[in-house]
Parts: sequence; C-alpha cells; structure tokens
Amino acid sequence: MKSDAHDAPNISMGSGREFDSIRALLDVWGDLAAGIGDDAAILDSTSTEPLVVSTDACIEGVHFERSWIDARDVGVRAAAAALSDIAAMGARAESVLLAFIVPANWQGALAQVARGIGDVVRASGARIVGGNMSAGAHFSVTTTVIGRASAPVHRTGARPGDVLVVTGVLGGPAQAVQALRAGNTPGAWAFERFRAPRPRLAEAAWLAEAGAHAMIDISDGLLADAGHLVRASVVDALLDASLIPCGPDINREQALGSGEEYELLVALPSSSADDVCSRYERRFGTTITVIGDITHALRQGAVTVRNATAEKTANRVEIPAGHDHFSA
Amino acid sequence: MKSDAHDAPNISMGSGREFDSIRALLDVWGDLAAGIGDDAAILDSTSTEPLVVSTDACIEGVHFERSWIDARDVGVRAAAAALSDIAAMGARAESVLLAFIVPANWQGALAQVARGIGDVVRASGARIVGGNMSAGAHFSVTTTVIGRASAPVHRTGARPGDVLVVTGVLGGPAQAVQALRAGNTPGAWAFERFRAPRPRLAEAAWLAEAGAHAMIDISDGLLADAGHLVRASVVDALLDASLIPCGPDINREQALGSGEEYELLVALPSSSADDVCSRYERRFGTTITVIGDITHALRQGAVTVRNATAEKTANRVEIPAGHDHFSA
Repeated sequence: MKSDAHDAPNISMGSGREFDSIRALLDVWGDLAAGIGDDAAILDSTSTEPLVVSTDACIEGVHFERSWIDARDVGVRAAAAALSDIAAMGARAESVLLAFIVPANWQGALAQVARGIGDVVRASGARIVGGNMSAGAHFSVTTTVIGRASAPVHRTGARPGDVLVVTGVLGGPAQAVQALRAGNTPGAWAFERFRAPRPRLAEAAWLAEAGAHAMIDISDGLLADAGHLVRASVVDALLDASLIPCGPDINREQALGSGEEYELLVALPSSSADDVCSRYERRFGTTITVIGDITHALRQGAVTVRNATAEKTANRVEIPAGHDHFSA
Repeated sequence: MKSDAHDAPNISMGSGREFDSIRALLDVWGDLAAGIGDDAAILDSTSTEPLVVSTDACIEGVHFERSWIDARDVGVRAAAAALSDIAAMGARAESVLLAFIVPANWQGALAQVARGIGDVVRASGARIVGGNMSAGAHFSVTTTVIGRASAPVHRTGARPGDVLVVTGVLGGPAQAVQALRAGNTPGAWAFERFRAPRPRLAEAAWLAEAGAHAMIDISDGLLADAGHLVRASVVDALLDASLIPCGPDINREQALGSGEEYELLVALPSSSADDVCSRYERRFGTTITVIGDITHALRQGAVTVRNATAEKTANRVEIPAGHDHFSA
C-alpha cells in the first residue's frame, strides 16, 4: 500500500465538522486509504498517462435550492463541479458516471437535469459511461469523473519563491448565494457565475503544460483552498487582498471566502509567471492575476492575508474556514 | 462514439418508473451515452486488461431502515453491492471512491459505517482512493468501483443451448425485508443474508475463467436479472422454479423475486456445465445449481418459468418486475 502523494486518496477536504468526519473515516481505514490527496486521485502512477478520478455530490438543500435555478442549471452545476476536480490536476476528462437520487416531485424535471449534465460533459470531451438511479426524499446527483493526465499537477508542488495566481474574477457565487438565501434578487453577474459555472479544463491543461508547480480549484473558496495548497506543499503563502480580482459590487472578503467557484489557484515559478500570465490571457481571453507569493517564513501551511479590508493594513488569517458542507 | 456492447454505458436497469427515468436520460444524451450495458462499463476495450467501472447508491429509507441493521452493516451492504457489479463482469476490484451524504444524527455512526466498508473493501483486494463528504437530510453512500478484467464477461453472451446456473441459496434478503417492513423479526438465516452480503468476486473470476458465456449479479432479483440477461443476449430463457435453490422457509416466488441478492446468474456452455458446477462446489464449498436453459423459441428476451407454484404446472412470466427503486 503506497502512501506517497501520487497514490494518495482524494477526499474533498473542507474544514470544521466536514474535516473531522473525514479524519474519522481515515483513522478507521488506515493503510486501506493511506494519505490525503488532491482534487482527484491518481490511480496508476507508473503509467505514462495515469488515470485521474474524482467524485462529487450536488444535493438539493445543501448546494442549491430548487427555487433558485432551473433544472437544467442543476445538471450544469453538478457536472461542472465534478469536472473541475479533474481540471485542477491538469487532466483531460474521459468518462463520467452519474448516481441520481430522485424524489417523485423531481421526476418531471429529470430530462432537463440530464440536458444540463449532457451539455457540460459533451463540451469537456468526455462520455457518460454509467450510473445509478434510486428514489429518495431529496434530489442529488453524485458525479464520478475518470480522466487521464500525462503530467498531473498536484497540490504538493508549491515552492518558496513561487508566485500565486488565480484565474477569473471572483466572488460571484458567494454573493449570489447570500442574496438568494436572504430572499433577495442577486446581481446579474453574480447569479450567472453561480448558475452556469464552467470547469477550466483547457485552461488547467495549458497551465500544467506551461510549468505550473501546484494547482487547485477554489471550490471551497480562495482562502480555504490556498490553505489546502500550502499545507499540502508544506510552505506558507502571503496574499495581498488588494490584488484579488473582485467582480462588480464584490468586496475582498466575499472574494476571499466565495465557495462553489471553479477558478484555479496556481503556483507558478517566479521566473516565468509574468510571461505565462500574459500568454494565458491572449490564449483564453480571460483574466489571470498575481495575488501573492509562496514563502517559507513559518513552514506551517499558514496563509497570511495583507490588506484584507481597507481599514486593516495587515491581517493574518490562520486556518481558513472556507466552505463547510456540514455547516451549510 | 462507439455504441457496441463492449463500450456501452452501464446504467443499472430496473423496471417500471426507474426504467422510464433512465430511458428519459438516455434519450436526452443520445450518442454521449450510447447503448445500455452490463453490471459495469468497460472503458478501454482495446487494452489487454480493460478498466471496468460501476457506481451504486445505498440510501437510508430506500435500501434499508436504520432500525434494521447496525451502522457497520450499512457500510458492509454499500460496499458489497458496488463490488458485486464488478464481480459480475469477472473483474477484480482495484479502486473505490465513496460519496457520503451524512445528516447530523448519523455523524456519531460514521466511523462504524466506515469500518463495514473498510472490511469489505479490504477483503476484495481494492483500495479506497477518494471520496466526498456532504451534509444532507438522509444518509446515503454512493460507491464507485474501478477494476480490471482480462476477459470481461458480458450480459450479452448467452447462446441458445446454454445452461443457466445460479450460485448460492436464494430468497433470504426478500424474506428479511418483508419481515422487517412488517415490524416482525426475520428468520436468522434470512436476516444474515440481508445483513452481511458478500460480493462473489473470486467465484465470478473463476467462472469467467471456466468459460462462462454470460453473467449478471441478481441484485434486482433472479427473475428480473434473468430478463436483463436474455434481452441483452437476444435469446429466451426457460427456468424451472422447482430447481431454484431456496433457503429455509423460503418459497419459490420469494426466491424468484428477491432483490438485494448478490449471487450470480451464469450462462454456461452445456458441454461443460456439469463439470464446471462440480469443480465450483469443490473449490468454493458453496452451492451452484442448474435452474434452466437458454432457448431461442421466441427470440424476444422472454423468461418462461415452469412450476412457479405447486398449483401451476406452467407459468409464463413476461417482463419481470423485480426490484424497482422508484416504487420503493
């Protein structure tokens, strides 16, 4: 039973109670599930193009409320979230399995959910190879994606001196969910970011090719996932909140904490970071932004955030809270 | 996009509303999910040892009630059901992913569920490589298994003249669930069959090696899965209910309909069936029984059952009902 990073199991790691629950499982399993891994697990690391696999659940009442979005969007979000984990490894997606739990009042909407899933899977280049269909009281889709990567990028590769960059413009999903939970109408930009996320498959594969040292999607939120990355790499990070690309009417705290965000946080070698970023923006026509550095000041997986609000000039943020399904 | 059986997607096919729901999905997906497959999907059929993958859900209130079994048994049942799909292909299991939905009142039981899963996965020779943890109102575990088979056995290979055999002694889970639902205490044998199923991995691999033409696990019940097998193979079957191996106090109808049964239904060439069966029993110390023949009388995937009750001498059973999650 190997326990190196390349063969480490992938369990989505949130914080708080979710983290405690996963820790309890891993304590029971021991060597059967040795180590804690990446956005996705690498299965046959000796192969020239190893398998990359991940599973992700999208649950009514936890990840969305039915009144918020159309059934098709439920499918889009489920597929995008699962594919994003494969993207974050710099892998391409090949095969998708879908396990549905469908209450009676969702049966009429199932074809629309399938349409959303189908559109996202088709765009990814993968195929739907299997699934399971069960009744149940609450709608959910659990999506497993199997892909391949010739040179998978792990969370563990960040080195002191690396530059931290983030793709896209942040904070939309957090703001949209906040508004929806309060019964308000979210801003159009923020809602669109929540409603129709896109897994950054091509972008991540390009960044892997361009020499990314470490990569993670920020589905738990920028700050939480920066924490996962630096702890996995046994380094620290210094982020400048004033550099974080915030969407319209999004403040820095929202952008730092926003979960359900399928952008990429990437550690790039400092020597090539500027060049990689400008080539990325020309290639994909979307933003990529330097937001900080990898350091080894503390060697304890700490993320320090400067300029976190206009009022504070230095704000050390310890273990980030991020998105905790068990508190949702 | 291939649509041959070897690359066909695997969606667990029940009947009734479950079947209709899956059909609706496949209509939407078209070529993206071409064909209907086996207990598990074969991914890279050109490989010398193709990947075999399957996903299966185990849901509180659908597949079990919490008062029926211990938390450890919930884990045993979830893992066994998923591994059984891999077994039915004659494959060996390599990697398992687990997606948990855990309500607050199950958090204290999670380590015991994990213990049950771990024990079954360890016995199978596979590893746990990843997973997902979410909150939710009802407990469920969705298990994805990835395996490999040098010579996968499909549902499609049954030929007129083949002998149909079934492993084990049937009817326990159906009788146990019937008693539990009625608030009665099930018989000890039946309850044990429900509580602690064992995926027939070694047995199935041996039967594949011994020349099985077609194989399926009878998780939807013997009659339903005989229907799946003959429809996939475009043949018919003639079963003799008086031959079906029934457990203590189990009648033939219960044995024919019992779902959540992880025994194997196998089409063997008639020339070797007797020899294979006697070698199987010596090897595994468990029962294997000839229960009928593959015919091509109707060429419509029909299963005809003789001697279905003591009162009837011929009882043609059309499309079997079996286990329908959507009616559960």
